[in-house]
Amino acid sequence: MAAGISVVQSGAITSVILNSSDKLNAMSRSMWRELKVAFEAIQGYPSVRCVLVRGAGSHFCAGGDIAEYPGFRFDEAELRRFHEDEVWGALSAMLECDVPVIAQIQGVCMGAGVEIASACDLRLAAESAKFGAPIARLGFPMAQREAALVAGAVGDMTARAMLLAAEVFGASHMAAQGFLTQVLAEAELDAACQALAKRVSGLAPQAARLNKQTLRALKLGGAIENPYAYAASAEHREGIAAFIAKRKPHFQNL
Amino acid sequence: MAAGISVVQSGAITSVILNSSDKLNAMSRSMWRELKVAFEAIQGYPSVRCVLVRGAGSHFCAGGDIAEYPGFRFDEAELRRFHEDEVWGALSAMLECDVPVIAQIQGVCMGAGVEIASACDLRLAAESAKFGAPIARLGFPMAQREAALVAGAVGDMTARAMLLAAEVFGASHMAAQGFLTQVLAEAELDAACQALAKRVSGLAPQAARLNKQTLRALKLGGAIENPYAYAASAEHREGIAAFIAKRKPHFQNL
Amino acid sequence: MAAGISVVQSGAITSVILNSSDKLNAMSRSMWRELKVAFEAIQGYPSVRCVLVRGAGSHFCAGGDIAEYPGFRFDEAELRRFHEDEVWGALSAMLECDVPVIAQIQGVCMGAGVEIASACDLRLAAESAKFGAPIARLGFPMAQREAALVAGAVGDMTARAMLLAAEVFGASHMAAQGFLTQVLAEAELDAACQALAKRVSGLAPQAARLNKQTLRALKLGGAIENPYAYAASAEHREGIAAFIAKRKPHFQNL
Repeated sequence: MAAGISVVQSGAITSVILNSSDKLNAMSRSMWRELKVAFEAIQGYPSVRCVLVRGAGSHFCAGGDIAEYPGFRFDEAELRRFHEDEVWGALSAMLECDVPVIAQIQGVCMGAGVEIASACDLRLAAESAKFGAPIARLGFPMAQREAALVAGAVGDMTARAMLLAAEVFGASHMAAQGFLTQVLAEAELDAACQALAKRVSGLAPQAARLNKQTLRALKLGGAIENPYAYAASAEHREGIAAFIAKRKPHFQNL
Repeated sequence: MAAGISVVQSGAITSVILNSSDKLNAMSRSMWRELKVAFEAIQGYPSVRCVLVRGAGSHFCAGGDIAEYPGFRFDEAELRRFHEDEVWGALSAMLECDVPVIAQIQGVCMGAGVEIASACDLRLAAESAKFGAPIARLGFPMAQREAALVAGAVGDMTARAMLLAAEVFGASHMAAQGFLTQVLAEAELDAACQALAKRVSGLAPQAARLNKQTLRALKLGGAIENPYAYAASAEHREGIAAFIAKRKPHFQNL
Repeated sequence: MAAGISVVQSGAITSVILNSSDKLNAMSRSMWRELKVAFEAIQGYPSVRCVLVRGAGSHFCAGGDIAEYPGFRFDEAELRRFHEDEVWGALSAMLECDVPVIAQIQGVCMGAGVEIASACDLRLAAESAKFGAPIARLGFPMAQREAALVAGAVGDMTARAMLLAAEVFGASHMAAQGFLTQVLAEAELDAACQALAKRVSGLAPQAARLNKQTLRALKLGGAIENPYAYAASAEHREGIAAFIAKRKPHFQNL
């Protein structure tokens, strides 16, 4: 099977699967480009209510596809294009996605894997998962926007330990640092992620989009426009009416 | 008893009590306005050395008073006034308070409760306390400045889990995320908060105010004026003299 | 032995030792000035690959040398000079160091000790180490840039507990807050730090410098110049060639 990004739709939940399983889902350049396309497409479909990102097989993502590196990394312009257009193109499409994104992490989550997980909203991991970015062994630093994303998600100390000491951390460390919402036995991870995705899909979709837009604007030091325009919306009325009537709310797609 | 904010003075310690105990201390609009008035008054009394915020009865605060919501939330201008003037008016009065503020948290601490706790300096909780902001069930997002306050206090991941997945967390999770200073058995919470308030009240009051002003300025990207004007003050001299004389310092009110 | 900063070179590893062991390594004004000189010197030696900061004897650092305080702290201009030139001079020289810096922490790590540790990249501590900044007992606040450094490293809540309540924390609390990479039995601390320093010294030195410059620029809201100029470098080629050849990389000094 060719390496690539698989997108599987199931009701309101879209699964995005990193798929180069003979390489522990290492990201090739074409996979980065496909990941961008996948998230841009998701952003265009209002019926999607939750995205689940995972790796094919029993790993999340081992990093970049190093076999490709000698072909382009030693040329400054090509290296810039790789990081700024391909890698950041995909990561920024993930960050700009207005729908809640859950990372389902087992096995290795290294380098590119940590970056992709850092661009998700919620992260659930198997207790055996391993996290790191040991690129100091490969002789290169993390690109600036990728480092900002990762340091913001894993914390400054853990980012320095990963980058300066090639440290690899287990799931319990990453949970204590606020990187993981929940740590589960490997056998329970898939069911827990499916249940979470289903629960997220039943919550108010307009509120989710506004919350994500607000948190994104805060990181950039800005504000969203017309933050109270939702006042008279059907979704807002339904949520409050259902609560007062002590019934379950029914939130329509946008 | 009418719902409201009770303010109780005991020596140098002021207790601010959220009081609508038949509604688990849910915050009505008038309670938000009273909370603002209470903190503005505290700011004007130089003899106050520590503020303790708690709920009446066995809960901290269940959130907003939803029974009031149909009366104003569906009108954009009213909704803006509620969030920007009433809620943010109270929270910003808390944030601008120069005296150390301790939150004493038991039972539910949800929505408005998490916001109020986030505006305190120190947070002690009973091990049975529950934390969340499940407004995605109510069909609306968190207002921008409130979200910035909460995300800064609970961490980005926990804020997303609360807002996007309506997740509710226990005290041990919140302690691990740096939201709680200490977690105690419910029977020990009150005594621990009283002891902490007493200890804080015995420390240098001018130093506390300068520390709070400094940390506030840092969050806003600014700096305080004349940061070393305290050099020749009686408080500064007393602290150092007492240490060198190996006696307990005696710090006067400002 | 006179109080001072000892610098010991061993291969690619430089040890910087806080040395006033009869005062638990409390920092005198001259020690702050020597600490600045030590780090400026390290920055000029390209063969240094890792710095280890520790205290002489069985403590890290008890704080400032309070015996000196009556001689200068009550004069505003002198107080400003102390904080802005001497203390911040040393801490900023540490922060501007491009080589990975490890703090080896046992015993007391208080006030100036927490500030020095906060200026390191990685922090390993003995499980019996104690952390705090109880200057509220001494009648003065933390200076602004020092407070920003410490609050960024220990987290906002722990900083407030240290400054407003004179709280002292153990190593497990500090690890949970993301301040410590690792907590070890006291008998194992030295060997663990030596092993970590050796490992860091074997990693790509140019990548380490670029990572540190990038993380520093991010904190200041800026960016490094020519971030991809390393593309054709020997170090970059060696790291990737070694990985592909499944051999250990050999990174030359810069």
